[in-house]
Amino acid sequence: MHQFLTKCDEALTEISSQGRYRRFVALEKLTDRFPYYSVTMEGRTRDILVWSTNDYLAMGTDPQVIEASADAARRYGAGAGGTRNIAGSSPLHVALEEELADLHGKDAALLFTSGYVSNQATLTAILNSLPDWHVFSDAQNHNSMIVGIKGGKTATVHIFKHNDMADLERLLAEAPAEAPKLIVFESVYSMDGDIAPLEQICDLADRYNAMTYLDEVHAVGMYGPHGGGVSERDGVADRITIIEGTLAKGFGCHGGYITGDFKVLDYIRSVAAGFIFTTALPPPTVAAALTSIRLLKQDSTRRTKLFERAATLKAKFLAAGLPVMDSNSHIVPLMIGDAAKATEISMRLIREFGMYATPINYPTVPRGTERLRFTPGPKHTDEMMNNLVTALQQILLPAETQTA
Amino acid sequence: MHQFLTKCDEALTEISSQGRYRRFVALEKLTDRFPYYSVTMEGRTRDILVWSTNDYLAMGTDPQVIEASADAARRYGAGAGGTRNIAGSSPLHVALEEELADLHGKDAALLFTSGYVSNQATLTAILNSLPDWHVFSDAQNHNSMIVGIKGGKTATVHIFKHNDMADLERLLAEAPAEAPKLIVFESVYSMDGDIAPLEQICDLADRYNAMTYLDEVHAVGMYGPHGGGVSERDGVADRITIIEGTLAKGFGCHGGYITGDFKVLDYIRSVAAGFIFTTALPPPTVAAALTSIRLLKQDSTRRTKLFERAATLKAKFLAAGLPVMDSNSHIVPLMIGDAAKATEISMRLIREFGMYATPINYPTVPRGTERLRFTPGPKHTDEMMNNLVTALQQILLPAETQTA
Ligand SMILES: Cc1ncc(COP(=O)(O)O)c(C=O)c1O
Ligand SMILES: Cc1ncc(COP(=O)(O)O)c(C=O)c1O
Repeated sequence: MHQFLTKCDEALTEISSQGRYRRFVALEKLTDRFPYYSVTMEGRTRDILVWSTNDYLAMGTDPQVIEASADAARRYGAGAGGTRNIAGSSPLHVALEEELADLHGKDAALLFTSGYVSNQATLTAILNSLPDWHVFSDAQNHNSMIVGIKGGKTATVHIFKHNDMADLERLLAEAPAEAPKLIVFESVYSMDGDIAPLEQICDLADRYNAMTYLDEVHAVGMYGPHGGGVSERDGVADRITIIEGTLAKGFGCHGGYITGDFKVLDYIRSVAAGFIFTTALPPPTVAAALTSIRLLKQDSTRRTKLFERAATLKAKFLAAGLPVMDSNSHIVPLMIGDAAKATEISMRLIREFGMYATPINYPTVPRGTERLRFTPGPKHTDEMMNNLVTALQQILLPAETQTA
Repeated sequence: MHQFLTKCDEALTEISSQGRYRRFVALEKLTDRFPYYSVTMEGRTRDILVWSTNDYLAMGTDPQVIEASADAARRYGAGAGGTRNIAGSSPLHVALEEELADLHGKDAALLFTSGYVSNQATLTAILNSLPDWHVFSDAQNHNSMIVGIKGGKTATVHIFKHNDMADLERLLAEAPAEAPKLIVFESVYSMDGDIAPLEQICDLADRYNAMTYLDEVHAVGMYGPHGGGVSERDGVADRITIIEGTLAKGFGCHGGYITGDFKVLDYIRSVAAGFIFTTALPPPTVAAALTSIRLLKQDSTRRTKLFERAATLKAKFLAAGLPVMDSNSHIVPLMIGDAAKATEISMRLIREFGMYATPINYPTVPRGTERLRFTPGPKHTDEMMNNLVTALQQILLPAETQTA
């Protein structure tokens, strides 16, 4: 047997023994019953109430978004049929890029096949544009940014403590004054649910002549008067060099993008490998995203409801004495602190209570901070929340401290 | 101005001066008129005959494929709503993976958001599994594989001359006998249109105890009795460790995948960053791909037609004295040898003759080998081909040598 097969065996055994072997639960999302999904487990099919979707605003099941997807399939086909350069650019792609540029108040936007690829491809392209960049990367940045930064061949990487401005300033001050500098960070950190101090980061960037790269993946569609993200809410979008986002979470569709100055985007369009060498997004996805963005731009009802629902669930968790993590976003994480336990609680929730929340284990979060992550949306009712609290109390809390 | 902006400016000026500034022509693919696309240029909208789609078999515009996409949007929504681990796995994703495993006669398959990501994520994951891999990579491998291989931190990379078995054997023999070895190659090379000698590569892999990684991106759906690629046609699929493919070309949809042994795929599923940290493919795409694969598995009519059409176009190019490159696949490249000239010919074809073929310039092909690339499909008629030949003769050949 090739030694790689032995390695696979050993690694899988180790992952299992740490309780973090990932079994994907096949959840059949049904548009007419969302957030209930149909699940077949152990020979039985039933409706499961899902608390862990990243379709935060339920836009993926919005009738107008769905019709845009179906209509585009009929008119333009199921796939783009080529890279952007090889017959894969359509007027729909151009319109979506214009809509995204407008959303963030930027000159231009560039589509990628995912948020992951947009981060990786763009950061690698920037960091290979000039020798000896100094990059300042938040300690909790997403894997896609970390991998993108690692692609920079001559860049020096400084990791600053999560959301810690003093640490960031210290590192900026230590770096050579003349070196090209880039600060890379997120707005909403999706595993803890906290938000970066964007204005302070922009101030530091000005002071040290650094460019800024902001991942708004967990904020677009949801924050700001038009869904332009935390940078819109905080009025700093024009101070960020590149704003990156996804079409797959708040907008409920698929794909990623960056926005920024025309020249910068034209450069990245011309050199970023992960943009050039891959088939363009399929027309149904592009049309659906365009509709979703336009709906969310015009109307804040879904956003208002989202934040009200998140606040209500947090309050209920707190009142019930559950270990809810401090979060100032729409994300509601519950700290468990052990991979096997997080997985077991998730399994009990689904088996005994017909509810699903994903256990978040290493490598997505550091070991010892394993958690369950709840993302209540506009369609999660008070009654659903009460049932969830009761279930979690029964699983997590000793009998005498239970309020229900 | 930040020095990066200066760099963007300079780079764009240089790209333009080399005649390889990429202007994407916005082509509106219309399912009912394919391969005619609607194009608005210089204020005028007209139908353009496209010769450069990678939707080789026109599956993206197949009515059953389209209905599968539209139906899935209605039932399951426009997006998956999560990563595979976070509520993004559906029975549809599982069914597509089973169908792909069956297509290649393998235990298991794993979906990625694109063929690009499947190559990059998988190769990086394999090469970081053990220290000191020796990788043998064909000189003409696609960028996605090159980038994936570069992600291997301790791997030694050997580039063998394109499709040259003597060179591959020499490099295999020189490498340490005990080192883990991986040979990485494609079946159909899409820019030259030639095909790798799969059986000979498998023989060498056996002799030197190497694993094999085969990119069948430009072959799946099209080669082999069921569209399982050149490895099916040549009867060697069971000798390849990992077969990788795309859903975006022959199958006409979007997304990528790998197939292989259960253990190997379970390992990659558990560790590959580009698989873990990204939203799963959207249901409309997954449903469309499933339908496309099943149609092509059962019926070879489209495949037969594809090869007949490609042979006809090649014969017509040859008879007309056009510089057609030697190709034993369905791809028909015409050598031009200069970026500015390739771009100009493409522009004249579209402006004067209402036909589109993409100019292929650096970095997609080496400088000096710039070309136009034609991919005739089942819907390109003899008449269309005759018109193309006449147009190319007028543009390319001195008047006295023209046959028409
Ligand atoms: C912060 C962050 N950035 C980027 C991504 C990748 O986005 P996408 O799912 O569109 O690939 C994710 C999650 O998937 C994320 O959490
Ligand atoms: C050989 C090869 N592999 C992989 C890819 C990437 O596939 P996808 O377009 O699905 O990202 C391409 C082209 O796009 C290719 O030509």
